[in-house]
Amino acid sequence: MYFLNQERSKAKIIVPSVLQAESLVTKPIPRSQRLSDDVKSYFPHLSHAEVVELAQGGKSAGGPLNVGVVFSGGQAPGGHNVIAGLFDALKRLHKDSRLIGFLGGPAGIINNIHRELNHQDVDRVRNQGGFDLIGSGRTKIEKPEDFEKAKKSCLELHLDGLVIVGGDDSNTNAALLAEYFLANGCSTSVVGVPKTIDGDLKSEMIEASFGFDTAAKTFATSIGALLRDALSAKKYTFFIKLMGRTASHLTLECALETHPNMAIIGEEAAASGKTLGEIVDEIVQLVAKRSQLGKDYGAILIPEGLIEFIPEFRELIDELNLQMADEASHEQILERLSHRAKSLFLALPSPMQQQLLEERDPHGNVQVSKIETERLLIELVGRKLEEKKARGDFKGKFAPVPLFFGYEGRSCLPSCFDANYCYALGMTAASLLREKRTGYIACIRNLASPPSEWQAFGVPLPSLITLEMRKGKRKPVIKKALVDLSGQPFLFFKERRSHWATEDDYHYPGPIQFYGPEEIVNETTLTLKLELAKEPRYVM
Amino acid sequence: MYFLNQERSKAKIIVPSVLQAESLVTKPIPRSQRLSDDVKSYFPHLSHAEVVELAQGGKSAGGPLNVGVVFSGGQAPGGHNVIAGLFDALKRLHKDSRLIGFLGGPAGIINNIHRELNHQDVDRVRNQGGFDLIGSGRTKIEKPEDFEKAKKSCLELHLDGLVIVGGDDSNTNAALLAEYFLANGCSTSVVGVPKTIDGDLKSEMIEASFGFDTAAKTFATSIGALLRDALSAKKYTFFIKLMGRTASHLTLECALETHPNMAIIGEEAAASGKTLGEIVDEIVQLVAKRSQLGKDYGAILIPEGLIEFIPEFRELIDELNLQMADEASHEQILERLSHRAKSLFLALPSPMQQQLLEERDPHGNVQVSKIETERLLIELVGRKLEEKKARGDFKGKFAPVPLFFGYEGRSCLPSCFDANYCYALGMTAASLLREKRTGYIACIRNLASPPSEWQAFGVPLPSLITLEMRKGKRKPVIKKALVDLSGQPFLFFKERRSHWATEDDYHYPGPIQFYGPEEIVNETTLTLKLELAKEPRYVM
Repeated sequence: MYFLNQERSKAKIIVPSVLQAESLVTKPIPRSQRLSDDVKSYFPHLSHAEVVELAQGGKSAGGPLNVGVVFSGGQAPGGHNVIAGLFDALKRLHKDSRLIGFLGGPAGIINNIHRELNHQDVDRVRNQGGFDLIGSGRTKIEKPEDFEKAKKSCLELHLDGLVIVGGDDSNTNAALLAEYFLANGCSTSVVGVPKTIDGDLKSEMIEASFGFDTAAKTFATSIGALLRDALSAKKYTFFIKLMGRTASHLTLECALETHPNMAIIGEEAAASGKTLGEIVDEIVQLVAKRSQLGKDYGAILIPEGLIEFIPEFRELIDELNLQMADEASHEQILERLSHRAKSLFLALPSPMQQQLLEERDPHGNVQVSKIETERLLIELVGRKLEEKKARGDFKGKFAPVPLFFGYEGRSCLPSCFDANYCYALGMTAASLLREKRTGYIACIRNLASPPSEWQAFGVPLPSLITLEMRKGKRKPVIKKALVDLSGQPFLFFKERRSHWATEDDYHYPGPIQFYGPEEIVNETTLTLKLELAKEPRYVM
Repeated sequence: MYFLNQERSKAKIIVPSVLQAESLVTKPIPRSQRLSDDVKSYFPHLSHAEVVELAQGGKSAGGPLNVGVVFSGGQAPGGHNVIAGLFDALKRLHKDSRLIGFLGGPAGIINNIHRELNHQDVDRVRNQGGFDLIGSGRTKIEKPEDFEKAKKSCLELHLDGLVIVGGDDSNTNAALLAEYFLANGCSTSVVGVPKTIDGDLKSEMIEASFGFDTAAKTFATSIGALLRDALSAKKYTFFIKLMGRTASHLTLECALETHPNMAIIGEEAAASGKTLGEIVDEIVQLVAKRSQLGKDYGAILIPEGLIEFIPEFRELIDELNLQMADEASHEQILERLSHRAKSLFLALPSPMQQQLLEERDPHGNVQVSKIETERLLIELVGRKLEEKKARGDFKGKFAPVPLFFGYEGRSCLPSCFDANYCYALGMTAASLLREKRTGYIACIRNLASPPSEWQAFGVPLPSLITLEMRKGKRKPVIKKALVDLSGQPFLFFKERRSHWATEDDYHYPGPIQFYGPEEIVNETTLTLKLELAKEPRYVM
């Protein structure tokens, strides 16, 4: 039993040709860097760093390296392979190199809670899901004393390098930490690795974050099965919410893979300033139109963060946060809302009204993430359809089923793509550290080609950073890469969606395969293929 | 893209050696049949039928056959392969044989809505999920006029045989239809095929229903990923509800495959007469105990039908159904409840109270299936933990996440096991029909061995039937096979569950594989292996 897991831990990784070289150097490549003066002011020591490419060369000799590694934030499939690639590369550089895992996320760095990872540890997690070898956490290295403690931990452990595996926030943190170490006499180099299933950490240089491939395929497997179920039973309308708080990349990719009857893209809703009522009306129209075609079934994909993309809803939340601060009664709060916010509030189902008024996060704010958008839409669409039915405008049946996919895509077995990608990221991080490149993010490019043809780079973290207002202060941040409404993946979807709405051109990708034909096993996402394709129309 | 689906449609099926014979006969095998007189009275024409085994023999010649096929009830992975096996076997018997699909379930038989299936139709769905080739439905052939209409359809189409693919109800129906046809001069033979992901259609002769294998593996894939996520993030407690209204086989199988911290087995709760409060207390104790061990995370499996297994809850529902019949007000209804029922009702979260009082099915009954057990348990466990915390008895964190897996396991790509099994079932049905065996269910045995060693039988449907009170009348039914509390699968679980509760011995089965090592690809369920093993302790 559980043979697959064991087989996977022994499975061969495809290492890009360039990383197979006996010895590697990092070569600066000509890319104009235009850091704003503002950003430069945060990174005086790092602002001249250049993009570097890994290439065969140099000498293989060199002393052992001590490197620390940490997982920061939510799980993403492949994390363990970053460790495996890093570990193997360090041991290859020198057999006495050491890899130290900080436990439970960045708090492990601050409090110096760690353990050294040995061959057995690493072998146990090769190609495995989860972050359980060293755990993860959401603590931020934020306050000046956190930075000082982090420095102390690195000095105590004599770390040559520190690898921070995380998303936009964690990589911003990696940049600040690198700068702090340089400014404060700590010789530990800091390298980030782009992780997030949401797919929103990407840039001109960074083609994809790891985990997105596996998570999207995992969700698409289930969505495909649901579409086939809808088509077979001909009586359910599935409202499927997908993880992705800020960006709708996962929803878009799943739509491209499965062709549901509708997929709401948060970025589009925001750009067109849609109201909740308009979104509800669109769904009502879809259900009614399909019903006329004899199709009282279907499926709609909804991004987890949708509500925050609806300007009207955003306003309501902001007003509620403001009003709730001074312990007013529910009646008082309602009275003080603007007309538009109050109308929206009163249109919501009562359990949600209650939730908005009563449940607050530790900062006293409305807990937007707890709002179950799929159920909200079902309730509102259901009401409208009843009204239509009463008017004789709708004669169909509406049997909605709310579903949410998210957690099961964060720690599952990484796809071959993510397994290979993460291993290469880990190897790249090791090479960057060996050459004392600090304030970099490991970067693998040419990802739509076979893994052997991938290329490895180091990208200066400050080049990803911009300044934004956060809680009234300008802060350096890595902007989340949202769905580009003029990008190929969205255009591809936009061109086909009205056909998918009524024609049931459902696709059923099936579960991730680890054996069998190359084209199945090493397939990556359509998002990546479309973004990188010179001629997108030939992608599918 | 979508290469896997296409590849699967061309993939080779493993046909049991016995079914590869050029010509097959059905040989009665000695098995004592003890039909009660009551059951006999329903099946005067069928009561002497014997179990038959398929074996090489006879002559291959014979005329073409006209056969109808229908899917009845919920989808189960593999259904399309029943059609493929049936189609191929019929065409092999005679190239002019015809297979006619009744559309949209048994209503298609009653109303004679059908279409003939050709090579192209069948090739398109080989090894594919869903029932979409001909659809399904839940209409029952129940009233005398339904039987008459069904007969008319079969006569009009000159059907030699009719294959009904369904669960316990549909196979009961198949038996009654077979008897009716014999008694009323219709020469169409009727054969059933055991289908249900719930796994509750089995008997001494029938080792498993098709679909159970794929559904269990599909859910176990997600559960394994969630367990790894829980272990990585160390902050969520997943309350995972699994499909299975009556029997907890799916929950038990998933527990055996993944080792969650708790799995509630409905049959055990019923047998020990547990109250909802007791179940809640057990979960509270588990959460508290794990918290003391520093483990503020975990996962609990909950069978969909749990609530109906709790005698106390069953009573409340029955009383509510009784009271609601005469349009009493909510207050009146509450007053009329027994003390025990009222206490339980008042202990429920208010949205659920509202649901119980307001939402009724077309018969005016409480909609038990709409009760979200996983959310009910979260609410009640959360309250108790808050009380404990207030008393200083609990210092941990409780971050519950409700999840439900069901629909995505009904129409997904069938596992190799289900693909092979269903194809063999279809072939067996063809052989039974050819020999004019009517009132039989197709049966494949020795399922824990490699497919080549499987054996094929026909089992008289009346031998599965007992009489039960339904709505005040004695009715012939096939009793659902519940989890046997003295059977090996449950004992295996029982022996290990206290270890699993605290030790995080999580297993991660990973997604279903269609290529690669035989042991992975053709692996079946632990339930089946344990039930059929001579020495169960060597199974794992």
